[in-house]
Amino acid sequence: MRVLLTGGAGMVGNAFTKLWLNKGAQVLSVDDFSLGTERHLSEFQGKSGFEFERWDVSQPDWFSPLKGRSFDLCVHFAANSDISLGGANPLMEHRKTLATTLMSLEATRILKIPHFIFSSSSAVYGDGVPMPTPENTGGMHPISNYGAAKFSSENWISSFVENYGLSAWVFRFGNVVGEKMTHGVIYDFIRKLNKNPDVLDVLGNGTQKKTYVHVEDCVGGITWAYEKSPSTLKNHASRYQVLNLSTEGHTAVKTIAENVVKQVSGGRASIQYGESNRGWVGDVPITQLDVRKIHALGWKAQLSSDEAVTNAIREHYEWTKHAPK
Amino acid sequence: MRVLLTGGAGMVGNAFTKLWLNKGAQVLSVDDFSLGTERHLSEFQGKSGFEFERWDVSQPDWFSPLKGRSFDLCVHFAANSDISLGGANPLMEHRKTLATTLMSLEATRILKIPHFIFSSSSAVYGDGVPMPTPENTGGMHPISNYGAAKFSSENWISSFVENYGLSAWVFRFGNVVGEKMTHGVIYDFIRKLNKNPDVLDVLGNGTQKKTYVHVEDCVGGITWAYEKSPSTLKNHASRYQVLNLSTEGHTAVKTIAENVVKQVSGGRASIQYGESNRGWVGDVPITQLDVRKIHALGWKAQLSSDEAVTNAIREHYEWTKHAPK
Repeated sequence: MRVLLTGGAGMVGNAFTKLWLNKGAQVLSVDDFSLGTERHLSEFQGKSGFEFERWDVSQPDWFSPLKGRSFDLCVHFAANSDISLGGANPLMEHRKTLATTLMSLEATRILKIPHFIFSSSSAVYGDGVPMPTPENTGGMHPISNYGAAKFSSENWISSFVENYGLSAWVFRFGNVVGEKMTHGVIYDFIRKLNKNPDVLDVLGNGTQKKTYVHVEDCVGGITWAYEKSPSTLKNHASRYQVLNLSTEGHTAVKTIAENVVKQVSGGRASIQYGESNRGWVGDVPITQLDVRKIHALGWKAQLSSDEAVTNAIREHYEWTKHAPK
Repeated sequence: MRVLLTGGAGMVGNAFTKLWLNKGAQVLSVDDFSLGTERHLSEFQGKSGFEFERWDVSQPDWFSPLKGRSFDLCVHFAANSDISLGGANPLMEHRKTLATTLMSLEATRILKIPHFIFSSSSAVYGDGVPMPTPENTGGMHPISNYGAAKFSSENWISSFVENYGLSAWVFRFGNVVGEKMTHGVIYDFIRKLNKNPDVLDVLGNGTQKKTYVHVEDCVGGITWAYEKSPSTLKNHASRYQVLNLSTEGHTAVKTIAENVVKQVSGGRASIQYGESNRGWVGDVPITQLDVRKIHALGWKAQLSSDEAVTNAIREHYEWTKHAPK
């Protein structure tokens, strides 16, 4: 299995590379280090089957050097992934989260790569949808530029499946957490406490509840769903799979804050909450995904939302202790 | 009312300009003439309240010369609008249909324009949805690059409404037809018969049925829905309106072919059909829109789908007779 992977230096890219190299795949990993870091690649350097290129996949010609090479699968994880940052800069969000998808789809078209895996997000659902939210929900109106860019990406993937014979797997992730996080609430809380171990300022009133999934469960679920799919896929409905990928439950920001304070400052810090039920404009206050479709394939996350959070706090806190300055 | 209009030289832009100038609005019309033509503007030249600029609104800085000016409303019609052409060139479709929307949204953000009207399309629904199709349909997977670009545009509008205080009206058009058509099945049939009055070759087997709406009904419906909206709009759900805009019925390609042959060649031409139930890859064979939401606002198309087709054939055929060579 020859895999072309974008966003290979991010947290999910790192976990995916580790799993698939162990399964004997060849992985050409691409990243521009705008969010991912070289440190996430160091464990693979020199390992059989692993290659890396520092390329910006939002550029129309990024895959030109690959002409003449064959791949079985393009896995597209490259994206901005910081929702609040994208709110301040729509064109940045478009370039990093949507243009990267469009140009990776172009790579599949020009290089004739038959399969495409995409990391979408619960942010595509926007606000005011049923909870837990199923994949075929109507009236999905994203309220963040990030959600708009992810949903737009899905629309283009759907069209490429119809027009150019691609088969695609779209995974709408919950909040993915783990040792090598590069953003998000746990990441922020640990950094805040490392700076000031006495006070933890929380954006919003702590009532927001998101569904969390551990990164190892996340790449495990992707791999399971991909491998369980029939090898002969005939029509658009079977060649375009959309799957929620998360745990069944969700975890309140308050729970996370208390958990981080306990693990990082031994319970010492006082927690100060904001007033809004949203962390920022475009923040969806409650997310919970209906995961029955992926469960029906025989896969289920091993860690619950709360367990994923607890483990990720421990793992990421340890990781920051050994981070290069 | 000061209106910034993109795609002003297209068929819908022409009809919109005529209606709104008559209502006393000031219209700054922008077009790059990639599809629209100067001939569609000639009737407005020198008319009070009308200005025109030849600009490409897919460029990030297209609205820079407008800094310091105020507008009440941005009406964004600029798009590729030729579905089959976009199938051959996804990056062209992205630039003309999605980038133009994103950059027009940026114009509303930077120039602080409070209202936005967008011409979306029944193509956003893709295939396999219920008929007639309501606005809040689940599982919408576009099967053309054009549909993907229109649906992506909607996603970004939704996010801009949440993040930057915009109010937006998204109209999902049926096939809009009228005198000044620049593409589409009637346009193609008339040109084919003008070249060869004995034979009319039809793409597909003629069973495709689309919902047609006359351009005058189309701009009438937009105007009605916009003016009927409450002037104080509080939350995302009320500031982001999605409305199907078409007739209730639909018309078969076979009916259109026979109608064109009758009106243009006096019934002389023989009609030769293809074999597929689709005109091209990405063609949705049957479209019919659930228009109860716009009917509930008190508006209904005056011409049926069949009547819109009959009138548009007559009007466009006359128009082509007087076209400049």
